[in-house]
Amino acid sequence: MVGTFWLVLGGCGTAVFAAVQIATADTRDIPVGVGYLGVAIAFGLTVLTGAYAFGHISGGHFNPAVTVGAAVAGRLPWTKAPVYIVSQVVGGLIAGALILVVASGKDGFEATGRMAANGYGANSPDGYGLLSALLIEIVLTAIFVWVILGSTDRRAPAGFAPAAIGLTLTLIHLISIPVTNTSVNPARSTAVAFFNGDGAPGQLWLFWAAPIAGALVAGALYGPLFGERARSATR
Amino acid sequence: MVGTFWLVLGGCGTAVFAAVQIATADTRDIPVGVGYLGVAIAFGLTVLTGAYAFGHISGGHFNPAVTVGAAVAGRLPWTKAPVYIVSQVVGGLIAGALILVVASGKDGFEATGRMAANGYGANSPDGYGLLSALLIEIVLTAIFVWVILGSTDRRAPAGFAPAAIGLTLTLIHLISIPVTNTSVNPARSTAVAFFNGDGAPGQLWLFWAAPIAGALVAGALYGPLFGERARSATR
Amino acid sequence: MVGTFWLVLGGCGTAVFAAVQIATADTRDIPVGVGYLGVAIAFGLTVLTGAYAFGHISGGHFNPAVTVGAAVAGRLPWTKAPVYIVSQVVGGLIAGALILVVASGKDGFEATGRMAANGYGANSPDGYGLLSALLIEIVLTAIFVWVILGSTDRRAPAGFAPAAIGLTLTLIHLISIPVTNTSVNPARSTAVAFFNGDGAPGQLWLFWAAPIAGALVAGALYGPLFGERARSATR
Amino acid sequence: MVGTFWLVLGGCGTAVFAAVQIATADTRDIPVGVGYLGVAIAFGLTVLTGAYAFGHISGGHFNPAVTVGAAVAGRLPWTKAPVYIVSQVVGGLIAGALILVVASGKDGFEATGRMAANGYGANSPDGYGLLSALLIEIVLTAIFVWVILGSTDRRAPAGFAPAAIGLTLTLIHLISIPVTNTSVNPARSTAVAFFNGDGAPGQLWLFWAAPIAGALVAGALYGPLFGERARSATR
Repeated sequence: MVGTFWLVLGGCGTAVFAAVQIATADTRDIPVGVGYLGVAIAFGLTVLTGAYAFGHISGGHFNPAVTVGAAVAGRLPWTKAPVYIVSQVVGGLIAGALILVVASGKDGFEATGRMAANGYGANSPDGYGLLSALLIEIVLTAIFVWVILGSTDRRAPAGFAPAAIGLTLTLIHLISIPVTNTSVNPARSTAVAFFNGDGAPGQLWLFWAAPIAGALVAGALYGPLFGERARSATR
Repeated sequence: MVGTFWLVLGGCGTAVFAAVQIATADTRDIPVGVGYLGVAIAFGLTVLTGAYAFGHISGGHFNPAVTVGAAVAGRLPWTKAPVYIVSQVVGGLIAGALILVVASGKDGFEATGRMAANGYGANSPDGYGLLSALLIEIVLTAIFVWVILGSTDRRAPAGFAPAAIGLTLTLIHLISIPVTNTSVNPARSTAVAFFNGDGAPGQLWLFWAAPIAGALVAGALYGPLFGERARSATR
Repeated sequence: MVGTFWLVLGGCGTAVFAAVQIATADTRDIPVGVGYLGVAIAFGLTVLTGAYAFGHISGGHFNPAVTVGAAVAGRLPWTKAPVYIVSQVVGGLIAGALILVVASGKDGFEATGRMAANGYGANSPDGYGLLSALLIEIVLTAIFVWVILGSTDRRAPAGFAPAAIGLTLTLIHLISIPVTNTSVNPARSTAVAFFNGDGAPGQLWLFWAAPIAGALVAGALYGPLFGERARSATR
Repeated sequence: MVGTFWLVLGGCGTAVFAAVQIATADTRDIPVGVGYLGVAIAFGLTVLTGAYAFGHISGGHFNPAVTVGAAVAGRLPWTKAPVYIVSQVVGGLIAGALILVVASGKDGFEATGRMAANGYGANSPDGYGLLSALLIEIVLTAIFVWVILGSTDRRAPAGFAPAAIGLTLTLIHLISIPVTNTSVNPARSTAVAFFNGDGAPGQLWLFWAAPIAGALVAGALYGPLFGERARSATR
């Protein structure tokens, strides 16, 4: 719950508060916001830092798709998945509400369409359609799950998995923010969809269906393709 | 003292010298400054590098809120806290003075309002009010303390704590520079408030009260919530 | 195959989807794209994350030039090189096709000249000629191979090689995107050349010849210059 | 020699080729260059990657000031210093010449004042005077030497020193590119001063004197202040 709270506060918070900012120097407007690069780094660092801080407590799942991928790969008992997923969604929603409260402390802030929701078509940042959104979310979640399973494999160097997993999330955002604003995480999408409104709730199904589909395929294939040897049951 | 000197020189120095810069190419003005992203990276790297270099000497506290959080969590004897906090404030002030001297070597530099002070309301970079400032400083300091306690927990991978802690400070700045210019560190706020003037000294109370409140809560809750097992007394 | 797929999807995908993006704030156009810096980070993270996730399976070669350099340095049997190189090219081409399909989901996308191909002369991003392209590709690939052989040397710290190698690829892109759009990897160049058209297929020879020449020289010289002591046959 | 070659090619090469770049999208000019942030990252990554790759061969000194600091701190025999320093200068000059050759492959390139030289006064990127330049170069080199000695101290976590040292160089550039274009390394300044011309050769004395003064002080004080315990003679 804390981990997904951190992921949404850090990633979506950066997008809402800091992506677009202007400073004035000698009467000229200079962009100083962190842009998509800063948002991508923020999302990755939520996972990198959260996994080093909390990974030893719960295994560091901050994402229902990851929980599903780990379960299908045999790294997490299926019986634990519901409690993980509910905690992730609740933690994310608390963060979404906190972002809304802080943002409302700025004069003239209007939440509709400004809460970093995921979307396609008219709600895609750069106008990508449904098929592009489905494809990119499925493929990127699948690779994300492979990196998670691979970097926590007993054969991988110990201790580096949180860095590798977090930086993979940065990379995923570098690729795909313009396409869907990047989900690969149904809890992150849910956390802001209803506060954002503006079509996001109606498109939320895709950001559950596609990441989970990608995670199921990747989790099922990791063992047969790469010869699973988990470092431990939860990591 | 050296660590907080480095934190203020690196973080506030980058903000003062390098955040907004323009190059001219073929008669066009091109922004080349490091922006809020560069400032966020700079703050994080002061802690990452300082903790790898000096963490083994003092435990690597460069922040009174962190010292308070560690003390309440039982990682540092309370009797040591005053000497830590005074050293941090003195180290920060020396760095603030050095930034002022170097900046004054540029023709036309005017310190008032340009020394990277923290603030809310009229002094918030993007116009956020008191409540937003309080909330974000409390919550971000609390999570910062949890990451510090968690990544130095005996169960976390050894050696990675300075990276995780430093990158958390980067993330905290990515989220909140537009809100308060980001403190989470009363020594950093104090280091530049008086050189900056312009409302900053009058708002300094918040950047002591909120980070320390967040640190107290987080330090007290870490053990009960996550089952404290410190790697050592000071780290 | 998966590794080179990831390298091309992550690096070229970021270049195609995210390098140039604009947000509108208060009627002003603000650049929010990731720029050449984001593309450089993306390429590096594909290798960093791929090597932590998959390095223990195949040795983590995602690049025919690296495979050739490892073979000439005695780290990989020459008999394995053809299967590695064919897999790399196939994985890259699949990623190139996926980028094309996703990009086509945006109204008005035109692939010609927009698929992140490598080039010189008229096809160099900043107009650099053939000699500059040859020189920079040879030298940068040679140093890349030395970093790979050096950081996986038995005398280097264990576990850090994927980070060092990936961040070297980031650095290589920081230097040379304006010159050739940066190859140092024939599979990456091949993966998008035909989808890009516009002179790229006709210049593809250079992005096989120069990286492989640099890798051959570097691989052959590493042992004599630096006293080869490999950590293992494949890493 | 290879390490300083890499430092100058990576850092100054990025500054010359990639700092300022423009893309055209829908008739609008969009900045896509890497800016001072990208240059700062490039300099840091040259040291991070070079030290992981070559640190086990020579100790990874790519900087005469670092060599002097290590010698005065007793980490390197003084008798070895001359050969280190000459190698560093030669390696840097070869990289400076290579940058010039590659840059000349772009139509209309004019080297004078465009070779990333260090300077103060009229040659400072943002117009800082002599005193500011002296102060910032002395202080930043001193801290750089402390981080090097501290992170390679036997009490620091093993394996992380190259990352800490490289990222310190990134941080140093984030702070001070606008002041002096950042030296802290006489070999880096010498490598491009004569190719750059335009006042740089006449100011080169400062970029030998200030870094070496800072290194001497820091090297002499590390033991008394922090209780030197080197991990090994050269690292």
